[in-house]
Amino acid sequence: MTAAIIGGGVIGSGWAARFLLNGWDVAVFDPGIDPERRVNAVLDNARHSLPALYERALPAEGALTFCDSISDAAAAADWIQESVPERLALKHDVLAEIQRHAPAHAVLASSTSGFKPSDLQRDARRPKQILVCHPFNPVYLLPLVEVVPSPATDPSIRDRGIELLTGIGMHPLPIRKEIDAHVADRLLEAAWREALWLVRDGIATTAEIDDAIRYGFGLRWAQMGLFDTYRIAGGEAGMKHFLAQFGPALQWNWSRLTDVPELTDDLIDRIAEQSDRQSGADDTRRLERIRDDNLVAIMRALKKNDRGAGRTIAAHERSLMQPEAGIDTLPVTVSRQIPQSWTDYNGHMNEAHYLEVFAQATDRTMELIGADADYVAAGRSYFTVETHLRYLAEVRRGDRIRVTTQLVGADGRKLHLFHRLENGAGRLAATGEHLLVHVDLKTRRSCPPEASVKALLAPLLSRHGKLPRPEGAGRHVGAE
Amino acid sequence: MTAAIIGGGVIGSGWAARFLLNGWDVAVFDPGIDPERRVNAVLDNARHSLPALYERALPAEGALTFCDSISDAAAAADWIQESVPERLALKHDVLAEIQRHAPAHAVLASSTSGFKPSDLQRDARRPKQILVCHPFNPVYLLPLVEVVPSPATDPSIRDRGIELLTGIGMHPLPIRKEIDAHVADRLLEAAWREALWLVRDGIATTAEIDDAIRYGFGLRWAQMGLFDTYRIAGGEAGMKHFLAQFGPALQWNWSRLTDVPELTDDLIDRIAEQSDRQSGADDTRRLERIRDDNLVAIMRALKKNDRGAGRTIAAHERSLMQPEAGIDTLPVTVSRQIPQSWTDYNGHMNEAHYLEVFAQATDRTMELIGADADYVAAGRSYFTVETHLRYLAEVRRGDRIRVTTQLVGADGRKLHLFHRLENGAGRLAATGEHLLVHVDLKTRRSCPPEASVKALLAPLLSRHGKLPRPEGAGRHVGAE
Repeated sequence: MTAAIIGGGVIGSGWAARFLLNGWDVAVFDPGIDPERRVNAVLDNARHSLPALYERALPAEGALTFCDSISDAAAAADWIQESVPERLALKHDVLAEIQRHAPAHAVLASSTSGFKPSDLQRDARRPKQILVCHPFNPVYLLPLVEVVPSPATDPSIRDRGIELLTGIGMHPLPIRKEIDAHVADRLLEAAWREALWLVRDGIATTAEIDDAIRYGFGLRWAQMGLFDTYRIAGGEAGMKHFLAQFGPALQWNWSRLTDVPELTDDLIDRIAEQSDRQSGADDTRRLERIRDDNLVAIMRALKKNDRGAGRTIAAHERSLMQPEAGIDTLPVTVSRQIPQSWTDYNGHMNEAHYLEVFAQATDRTMELIGADADYVAAGRSYFTVETHLRYLAEVRRGDRIRVTTQLVGADGRKLHLFHRLENGAGRLAATGEHLLVHVDLKTRRSCPPEASVKALLAPLLSRHGKLPRPEGAGRHVGAE
Repeated sequence: MTAAIIGGGVIGSGWAARFLLNGWDVAVFDPGIDPERRVNAVLDNARHSLPALYERALPAEGALTFCDSISDAAAAADWIQESVPERLALKHDVLAEIQRHAPAHAVLASSTSGFKPSDLQRDARRPKQILVCHPFNPVYLLPLVEVVPSPATDPSIRDRGIELLTGIGMHPLPIRKEIDAHVADRLLEAAWREALWLVRDGIATTAEIDDAIRYGFGLRWAQMGLFDTYRIAGGEAGMKHFLAQFGPALQWNWSRLTDVPELTDDLIDRIAEQSDRQSGADDTRRLERIRDDNLVAIMRALKKNDRGAGRTIAAHERSLMQPEAGIDTLPVTVSRQIPQSWTDYNGHMNEAHYLEVFAQATDRTMELIGADADYVAAGRSYFTVETHLRYLAEVRRGDRIRVTTQLVGADGRKLHLFHRLENGAGRLAATGEHLLVHVDLKTRRSCPPEASVKALLAPLLSRHGKLPRPEGAGRHVGAE
């Protein structure tokens, strides 16, 4: 699949990175100065953080090309994303040029944060091909895309758009009626205006306002929105009770709703100066990394809880291919990249995460022998009772590693596994030897595995039994 | 220290839980029906989640009493928190009664989300004792407290308030000028109004608005606020560039600023019905647990990155006492509670987190032998090269565990440790045997430890060498 990215600013570059890292080829057109440098800077950030969301490797990166014209970029594209500046006349010109060259089956999406799709469709050659797909910065990490069709948009284009966006790990949110600025930016604008008043009136500095958000309701909003939060606040009496209790306060006019603060030079200077004091010590590049590391950490945490954005990541992860190819006839049970949060003060992957990787390899082995989620749901599982680890080489953030697994023994209730972890260079970085016992999850006591598992174990054991016993197996700590 | 909680609703109960779990005694007065049930339900939630933020145990819980009068509750309090309904006349009565009985040195704080402290101080006996400390639900988890003095508030009361709030793990945010609704709720109100319009006009449902928040900017706001986010959006040109580029959009009036949507029965019904469809399958109690598990996971993730709310948690954690008492003369190197996110599909602590706990025990041992953060900063450290684990009993979420550590050997560059993990019942749940090698962090090669470390190792080794060799040391996987 090929995506054409028209406009290579922060948003366009973010789209390019999102498509590329999900295996699409990407053709960029941007008439500005040095688009390659800009796109590659964003791509660099994306490579650093997007793969760290997942416990499986993303597909092989697509090919990135830079084009000299819209026609070159759009001619063979399955998706065309317009991200040029927010001027309607400019957008009309660009969309017209795209439609002169693009295939009619392609999704033609605009990143506009303000215009309605019907504004964009005016005088278009094929209005039905056009819709708004409004993403959020950083596009390569945040899952939200507001998908806004007009009544003239072909529903099949909209549906295809939603399907393809889901395929690159995003959360498409269809908007029911077109409206200026869609949904999220209207909420943002309301808060932004109020924040400007607070700075102007000397109530709080930019840093204080940011703290009022991120130490409080920002933490709530990363996982539940406004309404679910207030639903809980209503307690057992629910949403109606909340509205009855807090509705009247709306009449108090706390926020400065009726005016727009004038952006005088003085106010601009004050905001810029406060912002410099708040975060001027870090350049933008560093702030981006801090932001992205935090976003990855938050989304990984939510993935474990299977809520909000974490649910999107989990669903996308399940769709990523499991490695199947064997090395030396051993199955590859893990293939993944190392996230930043796994690094410790020694500047390498912390010892506990070696075991986390081996636990993932054990989980994958369980699937291969039929002791999978259904088996666990039916009340049977394997528990690890003993583990031996050797740390042979350092592993660092961003390293792509893989694990192969050898079945050393399967004797009645016992299962004996040996994992080998290779770093990106193919060097053996660690080994894990594990003894597991088959258990009844109700009694929490050992019991023999079901026939279905035995049937899958037998051929694996016979194949792996012919291989040499792993070097290091049976070793105790400190053995010479 | 004793806190008097006047008003035992959701906010008052949250305050009670926050103080209790940080070791304060708490006296509650609430004239309503069955305050004990309400306070204990919140306390139950707090016990479930607050300790899970930390890698160290919180202090022993304080004593909770319920009083029949304000005078009983307030007479001996160091902190009095008023959380009665938002009616000014009621608050005046309650504050007057408090000041008739409370010590003059106590901090007298109101949880009001709307009133200014000068409103509350009108006709008070000691205005200088009163200030606003406005928290956010759930109070036992979210760190933010807006601390708002009026010009009449005694600065020493304000400073003491900030110090004590910091001591119970919160992030006090001093507000420069008093204003209706302080800072955060003004931003919230602006967004809330706009959200009500969007529902009323049929643009989006409550669930869609929540998704527009939590899949997008909500994730940004959990770690950076509005201004830092926009600073980054401005790119290398910074905040001024951003304001120049996006300031004009403020004049477009996207949001419905000038009106208040009328809360007709029809609109209330629509919101309640949409909210039921969105989250009616879970009762409030379950939604609270989901919210709290997510908040804990997000804040733990931010703690690892030392940003935003995670920095508050990290600072508070450092202030928590390290266990010092020995069992059988062995140091207790970990004492903590098990967070929910450490549980796996088998319904118990995942194997990797046993090693995470042992890695923490090893870190603590490093501090005890002087191989601490300063030592690492100077370029020396220990790396684990080999580990043997036995899983002897299951550990579950919420369990309070502790680890003792025995030094088995220290020979040149090598260090040999044996950790024992006891579950809450004092039963041995796991052992960890670890071989470490002393390294030069620059060359990443082994080298002898510094004299300072050797000097601390020697007496420990001589003491631990007299103890029996740990049962299970030297064992290999599968040994009979």
